[in-house]
Amino acid sequence: MNPLASPLLTDLYQLTMLQAYFAHGMEGTAVFEFFVRKLPPNRNFMMAAGLDQVLEFLENLRFSQDELEWVEASGLFRPDFVKHLERLRFTGDVSAMPEGTIFFPHEPILRVVAPMPQAQLIESRLINLVHFETVVASKAARSVLVAPGKLLVDFGLRRAHGAEAGLLAARAAYIAGYSGTATVLAGAQFGIPVFGTMAHSFIQAHDDEARAFTDFARVFPKSTVFLIDTYDTETAAAKVVALAPQLKRAGIAVKGVRLDSGDLVTLARNVRRILDQGGLPETTIFASGNLDEYRIRDVLAARAPIDGFGVGTSLVTSSDAPFLDAVYKLEEYAGRPRRKRSAGKATWPGRKQVYRRHRGDGVFDHDVVALEDDTQPGEPLLHKAMQGGRRVAPPEILEAIRARAARGLAGLPEHLKGLEATTTPYTVKIAPRLRALAAQLDRASAEPATVLP
Amino acid sequence: MNPLASPLLTDLYQLTMLQAYFAHGMEGTAVFEFFVRKLPPNRNFMMAAGLDQVLEFLENLRFSQDELEWVEASGLFRPDFVKHLERLRFTGDVSAMPEGTIFFPHEPILRVVAPMPQAQLIESRLINLVHFETVVASKAARSVLVAPGKLLVDFGLRRAHGAEAGLLAARAAYIAGYSGTATVLAGAQFGIPVFGTMAHSFIQAHDDEARAFTDFARVFPKSTVFLIDTYDTETAAAKVVALAPQLKRAGIAVKGVRLDSGDLVTLARNVRRILDQGGLPETTIFASGNLDEYRIRDVLAARAPIDGFGVGTSLVTSSDAPFLDAVYKLEEYAGRPRRKRSAGKATWPGRKQVYRRHRGDGVFDHDVVALEDDTQPGEPLLHKAMQGGRRVAPPEILEAIRARAARGLAGLPEHLKGLEATTTPYTVKIAPRLRALAAQLDRASAEPATVLP
Repeated sequence: MNPLASPLLTDLYQLTMLQAYFAHGMEGTAVFEFFVRKLPPNRNFMMAAGLDQVLEFLENLRFSQDELEWVEASGLFRPDFVKHLERLRFTGDVSAMPEGTIFFPHEPILRVVAPMPQAQLIESRLINLVHFETVVASKAARSVLVAPGKLLVDFGLRRAHGAEAGLLAARAAYIAGYSGTATVLAGAQFGIPVFGTMAHSFIQAHDDEARAFTDFARVFPKSTVFLIDTYDTETAAAKVVALAPQLKRAGIAVKGVRLDSGDLVTLARNVRRILDQGGLPETTIFASGNLDEYRIRDVLAARAPIDGFGVGTSLVTSSDAPFLDAVYKLEEYAGRPRRKRSAGKATWPGRKQVYRRHRGDGVFDHDVVALEDDTQPGEPLLHKAMQGGRRVAPPEILEAIRARAARGLAGLPEHLKGLEATTTPYTVKIAPRLRALAAQLDRASAEPATVLP
Repeated sequence: MNPLASPLLTDLYQLTMLQAYFAHGMEGTAVFEFFVRKLPPNRNFMMAAGLDQVLEFLENLRFSQDELEWVEASGLFRPDFVKHLERLRFTGDVSAMPEGTIFFPHEPILRVVAPMPQAQLIESRLINLVHFETVVASKAARSVLVAPGKLLVDFGLRRAHGAEAGLLAARAAYIAGYSGTATVLAGAQFGIPVFGTMAHSFIQAHDDEARAFTDFARVFPKSTVFLIDTYDTETAAAKVVALAPQLKRAGIAVKGVRLDSGDLVTLARNVRRILDQGGLPETTIFASGNLDEYRIRDVLAARAPIDGFGVGTSLVTSSDAPFLDAVYKLEEYAGRPRRKRSAGKATWPGRKQVYRRHRGDGVFDHDVVALEDDTQPGEPLLHKAMQGGRRVAPPEILEAIRARAARGLAGLPEHLKGLEATTTPYTVKIAPRLRALAAQLDRASAEPATVLP
């Protein structure tokens, strides 16, 4: 069994609500929208990702016999309800911003329209997938913005939060513009380019560092990148230079060296000089070791001659902002708009569309959130992705998603491209008819209203 | 195929190193140890978790035909090496601190002794599992310490980093002392108690809040917990009181109410008063909504009458410290101790044991890290878990691990139990023979030494 496809990847309250809906025949059409309430610290935009995994989950949603047996054995559910679960499939519609789209708070990026029990059951896993890939794509986009033209590689599997996080982080980073990943299974599953050469343990397992280098080069004559910081970085760079003629005679060019510790700016400069003076100007310098977009920006600002960066933990955990205030909220049930008004958590009701207005030079000017049937000028960002439980088109290839992401980053206003939070956030307008609907729902209720932005 | 068991859950450099080891016949015995270099901010101790998942991964390690085909098709590897991978199994030994053990920086919590290629290949997934469960157990232990006797439930699946993170976080939190989880599959897979009742969408799907309550209560007469903050919390509490007599006649007791937003201290007090005055003193109050151990400590310090807490995002992402400086380092190869001396990343060489010294009252006094054959007074913390690729005992039951964790938390010195970082960290001594070995390896090397703490 593949646990990543299990319908039991849900919160218990989804199943208890389903039993209550079943008992009371509440199978009306529900409309849920996924959106982010606010930007985390140090973020000026977000990048949508994870839709493909959601569609795959929905297409294959069904309870196996083992899973039904667990539900029954839990003692919480009635036999007729368990029978009903056996037949449950996802038959609804999904509209979404395509992956790689830049978006902002209060903009729905995904809408589900389905019979209430289906739309409810999938909430936990849908958020789980879209939230995480969006967290990582939004984080990865920041190093892409500060290191144009540099090789950027995801090194994060070991400190990712479980295996699926490692795989999806590799995918999300590649969408945002990374060059590839070190995670082999991400290469096998998604077709992402895979990078990697040697670890310190390889050097240490040899009694002699130079011997470790030549042992490796003979096995990988075309992709020889030496890790040179196990003992002393500059000494190792000199060893590489000394080995180069002999390797060259064997048909081996030293493609690159990797630094994984120490003062990268000084070491990169010194190593560059050693390599250049040693006749290896083509040998590249790759850096890794506790890097994030701030350090990359700083070493590049200091003109460190570094050609590429491996980014691990900070990327895959999005360590400075490991979560988004992302939610999936009921906006309409049985044809009537709904609005939650809990303190600090109020929502905009109804089925919505987001329109992006561009300036003449193609840069984003502002967005408008409007009711779906209240057409606005600009580019509508949500598109139908699934109809009646089936995808409306084959999965997008990653290269197309990457191209969209690159266009989105190019279209960002300059003041949103920095690493620190801007004081003038991007403008997201709420269309008048949407505001009017929210006010009308508040007036119609006996309870006091909550003021929205 | 279960992707969580794939040997391709590894970094490419593990496979390239394996091919080099294979080409040069380097199959000597390697000793790797997993340890954490330093505590993250706001942590005074860590709690080990994830060993069971590692042992399961190792027992089942093998390349499927699909995986071998991907390796071959990648073009990076030679056919004879791919053939060799087909036969690869894990045949080594594992020693480890049992799950639930409290530990500190520079203490190995897991040691692998195996032929170099095996010990190397598993590095990425081994760290991935032990690191994440240890991150979450160490985080969860903090809310357990500040909320003794309270019901604590993991609500984190939706914002966990992928599905496996949601499942393993539920397990790690339960080990640390949580009462259970909302994640159904974690209940099914690990036998953890599962909790949950209703979401705001259930209330909103009904035209009337009171009707939503009675609809739910009739279906779950024994586990009726009402979510009361969808519109106005105190009004909803009054509705619960008004409904109680009618529910009682139907044999339904209102077990609890849940608050999910607003000022929890004030709301809990007011709701408690409404419930008590309405004849419902047995009805409990459960709180959720952006909680962490700091907020739990504060609301309990303010004497808010709250009986239990649902903790989600902050727990499963360990949002204030989403990673540990956890590594898996080569300490010995082919019978000779090894030492990495990269700046800031030096390691203690050789096979090591950790001894814990207790005071007369059972509280931990200090630990000693020593070479394995240099027996010290105190309780040795690492125990053999796997021999020749097979577990030495069946998997521990979670209740036994929980009991160990509870004993560990009880044995912590008082000054380490607070939420803020102590100014007097726990003492971890390095035994003289271990220091001498490190110095000897440094002297034997031509390269300059790095000073360790």
